[in-house]
Amino acid sequence: MIKLKPSVEKLNAYFVNDVPYKVKLDANEGSNYLLQGGLNIEDFNPNLYPDSDSKLLREKMALYYGCNPENILAGNGSSELINMVINAYCEKGDKVTSFVPSFSMYQTYCDLCGAEYEGVETEKDFSQNIDKLIDKSLEINPKIVILCTPNNPTGYVTAKQDIIKLLDNVKDSIIIIDEAYVDFCENSIVNLINNYEQLIVMRTLSKAFGLAGLRVGAMIANEDLVRQIWKVKVPYNINILSQCAAVKSLENINLVNLYTKEVAILREELMNNLKKLNFTVYDSGSNFIFIKSPVDNLYEKLMICGVLIRKINYNSDIYYRITVGTKEENEILLTEIKNIISGEIV
Amino acid sequence: MIKLKPSVEKLNAYFVNDVPYKVKLDANEGSNYLLQGGLNIEDFNPNLYPDSDSKLLREKMALYYGCNPENILAGNGSSELINMVINAYCEKGDKVTSFVPSFSMYQTYCDLCGAEYEGVETEKDFSQNIDKLIDKSLEINPKIVILCTPNNPTGYVTAKQDIIKLLDNVKDSIIIIDEAYVDFCENSIVNLINNYEQLIVMRTLSKAFGLAGLRVGAMIANEDLVRQIWKVKVPYNINILSQCAAVKSLENINLVNLYTKEVAILREELMNNLKKLNFTVYDSGSNFIFIKSPVDNLYEKLMICGVLIRKINYNSDIYYRITVGTKEENEILLTEIKNIISGEIV
Repeated sequence: MIKLKPSVEKLNAYFVNDVPYKVKLDANEGSNYLLQGGLNIEDFNPNLYPDSDSKLLREKMALYYGCNPENILAGNGSSELINMVINAYCEKGDKVTSFVPSFSMYQTYCDLCGAEYEGVETEKDFSQNIDKLIDKSLEINPKIVILCTPNNPTGYVTAKQDIIKLLDNVKDSIIIIDEAYVDFCENSIVNLINNYEQLIVMRTLSKAFGLAGLRVGAMIANEDLVRQIWKVKVPYNINILSQCAAVKSLENINLVNLYTKEVAILREELMNNLKKLNFTVYDSGSNFIFIKSPVDNLYEKLMICGVLIRKINYNSDIYYRITVGTKEENEILLTEIKNIISGEIV
Repeated sequence: MIKLKPSVEKLNAYFVNDVPYKVKLDANEGSNYLLQGGLNIEDFNPNLYPDSDSKLLREKMALYYGCNPENILAGNGSSELINMVINAYCEKGDKVTSFVPSFSMYQTYCDLCGAEYEGVETEKDFSQNIDKLIDKSLEINPKIVILCTPNNPTGYVTAKQDIIKLLDNVKDSIIIIDEAYVDFCENSIVNLINNYEQLIVMRTLSKAFGLAGLRVGAMIANEDLVRQIWKVKVPYNINILSQCAAVKSLENINLVNLYTKEVAILREELMNNLKKLNFTVYDSGSNFIFIKSPVDNLYEKLMICGVLIRKINYNSDIYYRITVGTKEENEILLTEIKNIISGEIV
């Protein structure tokens, strides 16, 4: 068997296991509220290549994000875009840094192009000391610094002045601010794209828009930088159906605010209820919460009940990331947790 | 501005120019015959991530390609898959070879990961001497050898015994047989995947299925090799809508044979008509033809008439690649060409 390149050989193939469930709170997917009526496309040409530049989609996105279409490069999920940017700048051995724990794919994308990923530890309460990230960046001079805010999986929201401090102090690296969950906390720094030539903001329709199935994301930056990254964009990266469905959804952007506010209320309720059950609950500005459980093997026990959550191993401890569900879903989660706790007491 | 890595810096961004047209014969797109009734998806969950492994789609594909689902990795177009395989094996400086001229994206994908692309010249009539490719491979020991058959843009079909000779002689490189257009000539070597551990076959729904808009392709190889490449597959690479539409289309695979046979007949007609007009027409086993024109600036002159074809500059000569259209489209093409010729004589 011919060998993969070394940085890839060590990777594990990512297969998704199908587990039967009644409540799915493991992937931070939103509700389906923008395409509730299904999708009916009568007049289309599936035989023609899609618009390679996703022009109409970028126009609609620009209205929501408060920028120009020329500031946007649309991708097959923001995942494709993060991968694209890392690959655009990094050769084998080049460095990328971010806080840890954070989105696990950053490490994977570095491995795909042979870049070296160096994490910066967060504090005990998972808050992030921006000076540590700045110091690390000045020390190792990475090609790319990634900051995920609200951070996945911890929910921590980086203050805007911290991001500005990072941008003011680290001028020789591309700074990716991964705002996949920012719609839930109104803390976006998209308005700064023309102030910092090294700034790239990542957004997605997968979370607050409830459209993870479409695989549509956006990279937002100053025009020169967008044009630069366009060199590594493969043609026709977003198919005709996702472009069409995303455009249709973006005509209802007035519903997004209502939805994210509702999620924030449900999140606070869920957090309070779990605190009452002696869970350690970390602050979150997202559509998920990050917790430490007084019950062992919570992930496995909830899975048996048909409730899927995410288990996170970090520094020899076990944490859980739980998507904020609908009112009904959260109630089922709490009921099952209470059953587990009372079962253990008995 | 922070610099892209050198192999990427030299690339040009690929923007598609919108040109008004009445007949589009520039991208080898098929007809829309599998999704004629449009697409109506009532019962779907766009808020959930798609099946990351495209299980149902791969089952349907396996029936058509004559292999097992485990032999297939589905991609966002076969483009994504070719890029993926090159990136899986090649570090900066590693070599990739193929005949030239061939699909221009091979070079681009090499640049994206810093691999060095070395072309092997085809013969004067654009036939391919397989011994030259074998010799080159044994000389430079490339990580990957790519053979496109029928070849894009020339239409040349490599004989099966030539492919077998390549596979028997080049054992230390991955051999990609790009069969994007093979449905039009029934010359596939998918049945050999379990005989050669280094063999990868690429297929697509973009051409013979008339579904370029969906961006769905397939990589077919022995199970071990598929599992190896799965390491570099990003999760959720095909969106929920394309999976659904492709599955629906593959239920009508009995129509594909009828369609490809019809295209073959139209291709021969078109070739004969162009030969009568003093065009040099090269043999083609595909849904396009490759020609040299007795008229200068044919591309530009046809564009003015609203007929789009592809211009290919190769070794200081100008050639044209023209998609075989419907009977009506081919007639418009021929009429416009005749008008151009008679205009020039006057």
